[in-house]
Amino acid sequence: MSIKLNIPYVPNKNRLFRYLDRIFESNQHTNFGPLHCELTERLEEFLNTQNLLLVSNGTLALHIAYKVLGIKKSICTPFSFAATVTALDWEKINYGFSDICPQSLNLDPHLVQKKLESDKSVNAIVATHVYGNPCDLEQFEELRSNHNVKVVYDGSHAFGVRYKNNSIFNFGDATTLSFHATKIFHTGEGGGIIFRSKDDFINAKKMINFSLDERGIPTGAGINAKLSEYQAAIGLTILDEIDQILETRQQLFFAYEKFLSPYFELPKWNDNVTKFNGAYFPVLLKNFEKRNKVIQALSDKNIASRTYFGTSLNQVYDKNSRCPISEDVSSRVLCLPLHSYMNQSEVQEVSDNLLKLANPF
Amino acid sequence: MSIKLNIPYVPNKNRLFRYLDRIFESNQHTNFGPLHCELTERLEEFLNTQNLLLVSNGTLALHIAYKVLGIKKSICTPFSFAATVTALDWEKINYGFSDICPQSLNLDPHLVQKKLESDKSVNAIVATHVYGNPCDLEQFEELRSNHNVKVVYDGSHAFGVRYKNNSIFNFGDATTLSFHATKIFHTGEGGGIIFRSKDDFINAKKMINFSLDERGIPTGAGINAKLSEYQAAIGLTILDEIDQILETRQQLFFAYEKFLSPYFELPKWNDNVTKFNGAYFPVLLKNFEKRNKVIQALSDKNIASRTYFGTSLNQVYDKNSRCPISEDVSSRVLCLPLHSYMNQSEVQEVSDNLLKLANPF
Repeated sequence: MSIKLNIPYVPNKNRLFRYLDRIFESNQHTNFGPLHCELTERLEEFLNTQNLLLVSNGTLALHIAYKVLGIKKSICTPFSFAATVTALDWEKINYGFSDICPQSLNLDPHLVQKKLESDKSVNAIVATHVYGNPCDLEQFEELRSNHNVKVVYDGSHAFGVRYKNNSIFNFGDATTLSFHATKIFHTGEGGGIIFRSKDDFINAKKMINFSLDERGIPTGAGINAKLSEYQAAIGLTILDEIDQILETRQQLFFAYEKFLSPYFELPKWNDNVTKFNGAYFPVLLKNFEKRNKVIQALSDKNIASRTYFGTSLNQVYDKNSRCPISEDVSSRVLCLPLHSYMNQSEVQEVSDNLLKLANPF
Repeated sequence: MSIKLNIPYVPNKNRLFRYLDRIFESNQHTNFGPLHCELTERLEEFLNTQNLLLVSNGTLALHIAYKVLGIKKSICTPFSFAATVTALDWEKINYGFSDICPQSLNLDPHLVQKKLESDKSVNAIVATHVYGNPCDLEQFEELRSNHNVKVVYDGSHAFGVRYKNNSIFNFGDATTLSFHATKIFHTGEGGGIIFRSKDDFINAKKMINFSLDERGIPTGAGINAKLSEYQAAIGLTILDEIDQILETRQQLFFAYEKFLSPYFELPKWNDNVTKFNGAYFPVLLKNFEKRNKVIQALSDKNIASRTYFGTSLNQVYDKNSRCPISEDVSSRVLCLPLHSYMNQSEVQEVSDNLLKLANPF
């Protein structure tokens, strides 16, 4: 028997087909159609947010957010999926990396503060809620006010996470979401942006439809990043089951934590989380060599694991920079299997194997 | 009874659901899955092309093509859908407009040649096969060779058009396609790029998946522009019926031509077309005022029509520039209803009405 790292959540087929039937009724396939509107409303309600703009994918969400917010120079986390930075790079935004906190694995606000104090030209902070673990939200809010910078959160890992009983997405100027098939909530491909400001939302909604005005004339920077009715149908189907999906993942996460926290270095999860989402279960092994041995040994037992993220992005995009904590973490972090089709005994099996293998690591 | 301008082609539901069943079997929702591969192969075969890369939408196709080909300074047609230019603009590519030919309504290669002779820093030409009417392909091939410039065709209108029994897409360095729901062949949202060079294709395929290498490390400019399995399923469904779709539209196009060509100024279609696609039926009215009166009068008869394109893009993006022909054409062109759900008698009805209204225009 093999245990996979991740299995995309399969939407209920009959329910999906019923949503798709509505496309055949409306014959509207995209361009903010009825399913797109329904998904937007229901997600806003579920997430307890406003100003949610659905877009083609999570990467375009970053591109659009950066563009709408007018980001010129940004401080960015090096410990994130590549897209967080490829989007800055593609948009020719000046950016530099700042190291992460060794406990949370998120961008360290104290280091950011020093950089903001020494470089007044920085106008934005780009931070990721890595593995769904909230950043230091209050401290970034302070930096945002005190230094007049925009804060963009890459929230691709953080769907459904609640912070002090509030949505994690109600912080910063924008939070971007990925609805890629590998995510807890997905639309095959897809994404979203939650804006703090209604004006930014309105501008972004126009921007993703070529910035066309009512007469069909472009009025500024524009692109196509619309989420189709088919994508919305997948989203609506999965949203119908989202409570159960989150509950299952959360229970698997807690099971891993129970088995492994006495023995392994784990990220320190933010104390203010009032709802976890069980998106990932990362463990920190002793070093690069041990991590790689564990991957191989687990693989020999038909258990998949992944070096997510195996590279600190500063080492790719700014080779002269140093982010020692992020570099260290990238060299020894390992994500364990966690998906909707696992059960508690498989978590136990993975944990038992890891304990055997990693002991005495 | 009303006659709509365009009705998206409705994929056969049962067939679509059968293709979607395969997603449930594979549980692969995106990332170059089996349906993506099958659609690529079948489209290449149908279009008689190679190096086709499917992407999220037709606008991203332009962004990617410009980026992969290294376009720095371009001469661009002003008579196209906004995306042709929003993509240049977004990518911060230096560009200038050059006027169109008053017969073909496509970028005039003679004017382009003069510009290339006077500005050696231009490294690309961006032309659109407007309404599916092929550009002067041989002349642009000559400019491409003689001036060492890249040629990008926006082929969004040109699906299925054949030129001297060859695919219209086998010219230039890249042709971009839109598979938006309003197009002859569609995937809800979607698009494609056909590259002349295998290397460009390989680079683009990597680029649209974050330029990740085998180890998952980004190696250059990257983005997500992947077409999902769901989009591919829609495309496969419609491709099963594409011969009939093209045949129907072509017959409607010929009917319009028969009724209207004795009385109206029409674009001159390239003599070398060996297969039309009936994508659009544009007529040129006497002037702006008459065009607008006709729109209203047709509308009073429940016949939709559209000023496509109602704005010469140089007037939006380079207000000091002049493209008198494109500006003139934009002010008086009108596209008539043409879609898969029309019949010949409706074409006659539209034509009769237009003749009554536009006579003595």
